[in-house]
Amino acid sequence: MDTIKYILSEDQMPLAWYNIQADLPTPMPPVLHPGTKKAIAPHDLEPLFPPELIRQEVSQERWIEIPDEVQSIYRQWRPTPLYRARRLEKALDTPAKIYYKYEGVSPAGSHKPNTAIPQAYYNKQAGVKRLTTETGAGQWGSSLAIAGAFFDLEVVVYMVKVSYQQKPYRRAFMEGYGARVVASPSDETEAGRAILQMHPDSTGSLGIAISEAVEVAAQCDRTKYALGSVLNHVLLHQTVIGLETLAQLEQAGDYPDIIVGCTGGGSNFAGITFPFMGAKLRGEQQLKFVAIEPAACPTLTKGKYTYDFGDIAHLTPLVKMHTLGNSFVPQGFHAGGLRYHGMAPLLSHIVELGLIETRAEPQLGCFAAGLTFARAEGILPAPEANHAVKGAIDEALRCKESGNSKTILFNLCGHGHFDMQAYMDYQAGLLRDTEYSAEEVALALAGLPVM
Amino acid sequence: MDTIKYILSEDQMPLAWYNIQADLPTPMPPVLHPGTKKAIAPHDLEPLFPPELIRQEVSQERWIEIPDEVQSIYRQWRPTPLYRARRLEKALDTPAKIYYKYEGVSPAGSHKPNTAIPQAYYNKQAGVKRLTTETGAGQWGSSLAIAGAFFDLEVVVYMVKVSYQQKPYRRAFMEGYGARVVASPSDETEAGRAILQMHPDSTGSLGIAISEAVEVAAQCDRTKYALGSVLNHVLLHQTVIGLETLAQLEQAGDYPDIIVGCTGGGSNFAGITFPFMGAKLRGEQQLKFVAIEPAACPTLTKGKYTYDFGDIAHLTPLVKMHTLGNSFVPQGFHAGGLRYHGMAPLLSHIVELGLIETRAEPQLGCFAAGLTFARAEGILPAPEANHAVKGAIDEALRCKESGNSKTILFNLCGHGHFDMQAYMDYQAGLLRDTEYSAEEVALALAGLPVM
Repeated sequence: MDTIKYILSEDQMPLAWYNIQADLPTPMPPVLHPGTKKAIAPHDLEPLFPPELIRQEVSQERWIEIPDEVQSIYRQWRPTPLYRARRLEKALDTPAKIYYKYEGVSPAGSHKPNTAIPQAYYNKQAGVKRLTTETGAGQWGSSLAIAGAFFDLEVVVYMVKVSYQQKPYRRAFMEGYGARVVASPSDETEAGRAILQMHPDSTGSLGIAISEAVEVAAQCDRTKYALGSVLNHVLLHQTVIGLETLAQLEQAGDYPDIIVGCTGGGSNFAGITFPFMGAKLRGEQQLKFVAIEPAACPTLTKGKYTYDFGDIAHLTPLVKMHTLGNSFVPQGFHAGGLRYHGMAPLLSHIVELGLIETRAEPQLGCFAAGLTFARAEGILPAPEANHAVKGAIDEALRCKESGNSKTILFNLCGHGHFDMQAYMDYQAGLLRDTEYSAEEVALALAGLPVM
Repeated sequence: MDTIKYILSEDQMPLAWYNIQADLPTPMPPVLHPGTKKAIAPHDLEPLFPPELIRQEVSQERWIEIPDEVQSIYRQWRPTPLYRARRLEKALDTPAKIYYKYEGVSPAGSHKPNTAIPQAYYNKQAGVKRLTTETGAGQWGSSLAIAGAFFDLEVVVYMVKVSYQQKPYRRAFMEGYGARVVASPSDETEAGRAILQMHPDSTGSLGIAISEAVEVAAQCDRTKYALGSVLNHVLLHQTVIGLETLAQLEQAGDYPDIIVGCTGGGSNFAGITFPFMGAKLRGEQQLKFVAIEPAACPTLTKGKYTYDFGDIAHLTPLVKMHTLGNSFVPQGFHAGGLRYHGMAPLLSHIVELGLIETRAEPQLGCFAAGLTFARAEGILPAPEANHAVKGAIDEALRCKESGNSKTILFNLCGHGHFDMQAYMDYQAGLLRDTEYSAEEVALALAGLPVM
């Protein structure tokens, strides 16, 4: 009873990304200009993004074609495998069937290249020479560095200073592909200098790093900004994950009852769920979606659904999302990809529509789940992915209690080969769980813009 | 003109390993008992290995069936992709065609699970409860840790002390799968204690770690020893690499003129080349094989072809191989998988038959080649694999000079995600090249056993 792999032939690969906006019962709230509080027009985004990505950001078309050049690069590691985790099922002694899609086979070791490649492609098409971005854990910065090398674009990565210091290997990885990596806050930008003046010892945050990257892109010629999650076009590109999974499950002759994913900015969760959610929105399926977020950054479970900035210097437009406030910085937990103060506005909107169950999990239980998974399935997950593993194992154990066999699917969005410090700390008993009280959350939310 | 991937359906996967011994024009020299200097009998190996692995070690059958249970686990990441490196060809502006087989998609990130899985399987079948082994860079120890978790075997890894100290992440990785990792030399064995008494500050070597692992296996009940390279059965298991490649090249409608691999103990090189070499031995093909070894551990290019021990404490039988002497410890270079003092006796024998070109490469050029490869192909190679990349790039550049288009194949045996310290040191200009003079080699060889 070994684990089974489902592959696809290349001619079964998706030719278009799925845009869930086409199937929403109510449209997303508009993006607002921070000064006028009026809806912005697509062309207002032109200083930051190339025309095609802006078109995708606002598109209501159901399918958006994947360019041949992007498909050609996708094929280097896609289709990624879908596994039936029979050794894990046996280890848990559950009647549930567990499937996982594995995105760690990409050259960056995570799902992030799914959007880095098309973003670099569309920028190159538009004559852009340089991309700026931010990175926390480093998975996104690594992916954009690889995409930049493929399309001969300069890449500048503002890396949250605490990560820059604690993860020199991630930095070396990005530099290996030719990217320039800058510790944020830096003295290269007004936003960075302002933070350093107030807090010379600031260890940075994603909100600060975004401010720096956005500022440089807005001011410099032939320079644009690239974001690794949160935006509609990023979620769109990740739907290649769920579309492949649909075809692979058809091959397995199965269909999920429950889909579990981890949520940071929301892109990997959207990637695995949206193609299935479309069917549910059209009334075709009864299906449960579970978003697992870290208890130390409980955006969906404790945040407020309201307009906020994407960054700390308030350089971005205002977007309606679940947020802990743009100055919120989670402390001391080891899933750097899940530390953003907000959530993808598109995903937030869908949560408000009542389509998704949300849960917050403390990190210790997630690491334990990750090691259970590794010993059964052989793959050591990234700490971010451990949240999805934890959610899936809990659902499987619930099936064991009830004697009810369900089909559970989750997205294993990356491997943990770059995250061994976190595992070392966990195994040495050095990690602690963080949970925020209502008062702490209220305090974090006090900085929200007045609407 | 993007890089192309060739995959195989699972029903095209090899059902048997290829044993090149069946096709050798002259048999390998015998393995000798160190006391009597007489050939040992297969049953003399029983304290260390289970019966089926001993049978494979001495088998002259051309094909050895891969058990269903092993095939089932192989299928989790196999068949591995074969790529036509068109972006690299373009970057080099070469008329050559370059193919690479990529083994980094395994859960350990290298080719080592190809033999760890069958070794664990046959030991489990024989009622073994515990496996001991050594590891240098950690790729082998990680692979055996995963295999142990799959087959519910205890795994004890004697890790060369300098690696244990410098690579805590590798250690944490093995421990994550439940293995016990011991810094070698340790005080747990007579061999370790003897070394520590003479050299209290010893930072260890593969030869020492092998002595410790062999001693424990020989003395303890239901405990056997597992080796990650060098032995015939290990090379045999790795032929799954070349067999898949043959089928993938058939799909591509191509055949190599040159096959390049890196050599440490010899197993990944044997894995990619032996299935092709069989055809050459039968006179069917004109094909060049190039073995690239590190200039800092020049076993094939500067070592002596003679009988030597596999370990420093002289607990192993005597095997005829290219060796730098069992007490040789290479210094200050960053491809831990290529630091063994000897070479697989089977591969050494084939080198002596004149079938393989050998070259030694200093590490700086290999790192440069690895980064050229990463920027073109997206995958950052392990420092070991960089030696193969360097060899392949040099062949391709030779084609550019001569205007001659050749088809070059190499084995990219692992990714470099665990080796970022080496890349950091390289990028910071901290690495140096080592080459040994004839005098230094003569000194190292002075410790060879008198025959």
